[in-house]
Amino acid sequence: MFEYSRPIAYHETDAMGVVHHSNYIRLFEDCRVAYLRENNLSDCHYPDFDMTLAVLSVSCEHRHPLYFADNIKVLMQARLERLKIYFRYAIYSTRFDIAVAHGQTVHVPVNSRFNVCRLPKRLKLHLETEQWTETWP
Amino acid sequence: MFEYSRPIAYHETDAMGVVHHSNYIRLFEDCRVAYLRENNLSDCHYPDFDMTLAVLSVSCEHRHPLYFADNIKVLMQARLERLKIYFRYAIYSTRFDIAVAHGQTVHVPVNSRFNVCRLPKRLKLHLETEQWTETWP
Amino acid sequence: MFEYSRPIAYHETDAMGVVHHSNYIRLFEDCRVAYLRENNLSDCHYPDFDMTLAVLSVSCEHRHPLYFADNIKVLMQARLERLKIYFRYAIYSTRFDIAVAHGQTVHVPVNSRFNVCRLPKRLKLHLETEQWTETWP
Amino acid sequence: MFEYSRPIAYHETDAMGVVHHSNYIRLFEDCRVAYLRENNLSDCHYPDFDMTLAVLSVSCEHRHPLYFADNIKVLMQARLERLKIYFRYAIYSTRFDIAVAHGQTVHVPVNSRFNVCRLPKRLKLHLETEQWTETWP
Repeated sequence: MFEYSRPIAYHETDAMGVVHHSNYIRLFEDCRVAYLRENNLSDCHYPDFDMTLAVLSVSCEHRHPLYFADNIKVLMQARLERLKIYFRYAIYSTRFDIAVAHGQTVHVPVNSRFNVCRLPKRLKLHLETEQWTETWP
Repeated sequence: MFEYSRPIAYHETDAMGVVHHSNYIRLFEDCRVAYLRENNLSDCHYPDFDMTLAVLSVSCEHRHPLYFADNIKVLMQARLERLKIYFRYAIYSTRFDIAVAHGQTVHVPVNSRFNVCRLPKRLKLHLETEQWTETWP
Repeated sequence: MFEYSRPIAYHETDAMGVVHHSNYIRLFEDCRVAYLRENNLSDCHYPDFDMTLAVLSVSCEHRHPLYFADNIKVLMQARLERLKIYFRYAIYSTRFDIAVAHGQTVHVPVNSRFNVCRLPKRLKLHLETEQWTETWP
Repeated sequence: MFEYSRPIAYHETDAMGVVHHSNYIRLFEDCRVAYLRENNLSDCHYPDFDMTLAVLSVSCEHRHPLYFADNIKVLMQARLERLKIYFRYAIYSTRFDIAVAHGQTVHVPVNSRFNVCRLPKRLKLHLETEQWTETWP
């Protein structure tokens, strides 16, 4: 299971003093980008390769707010199903033992003209080895 | 059905030349805020009133990208179900006849200490008159 | 003098309850884009024309914070000086009589390969008619 | 001289394929926050302490664009002058030998009611030891 962590940025907070809900979607993306980078797969993706994982859908459920002083950890799983790639995420704050939010994004590989394209071989092979557990935090 | 429209801001685009997917969530929020304002309900909400509609969940499905040159129109419906408020959205570009994206957000009223609270009476009454159609664009 | 106004978006606020300082820079941009649009000059700019006004520098001075409930008005002046275009801005809230912030951005026209290019004739002619007052609010 | 580095996030790019100019201001902030954290001074600041460094002014000069694939390094210096704190920044990409951007922000300590306040002793002492070089990259 891929793990990504970083501190909260101050500009991610809103007037309630918590991370604005739209920024969880950006946090999911930061986690996906780190996943490609740390698995040496960045060269299968824009800008090194004419493929980007277009977003078909996003969802996120919130249980607890995140605060500026929090450090966050994201657990992520990936699953390839024909042309679609599913990522699911569980976000933890250092201050809680349970996930503060869960989410999922679904993607399809497209080229720079937004036509659906094949996944680069190495990325495809890597995704096929990923585990998608029955239960999820 | 509430309707909100505005042009795309340049800073909402990303390196693919389209509106970044996280910004659809912000667009939903802009639409909710306009809904309260245009129905003279802003005084039922932060900062005029100690209540904010905390986000329990968000989801969005994408069919077509949005471009900088697009003008967007959002159609929105609201539904009150006990303490939860459901908003659903359909986003249109001026260049397509069909919706480019659909989404939903679910909310619960909380006070500034993030405790669940009652809806202000006027807001509650207004939400109870809203129509939630069987079919949705 | 060009005038642009819009309400504050909730996602523009930060944990201090005020508009985050980086969003003033986006507000300047929103004002420039509206200036081109309202003067029918959008077709002189990306994406209709292979020219964008690359940002050479930005500055902003803050006198008062802006709040979610504020409506903002931006006054803007433009000045062409050889290849450089200067825009200066004064931001007003509906609740103060004086400007809450002042700023300036300096631009140079570039094409999509980031090479400096000529200004489209119509945009050039329009900018040459702009007034740059000695004093500025 | 404080040094901060991180990769570019995809959501920081714009339709020109480069980091949007407003995000340099956020990068400056990320660097300041890291400076406080790495010097164990976070407890002198919001939310641990009723003080935040309100922004009086920002400026940034751009020499080269930053791309999604770039890793960035920020060099920062701080200077205390009576109640004002000056930070200046030089941003480097891993692909250039020179700074791609320079900037400065000026701050004053305020409490949560936006009244100017004293700097916490430890932060004041730390800032007084900082060096502000005559030349700057």
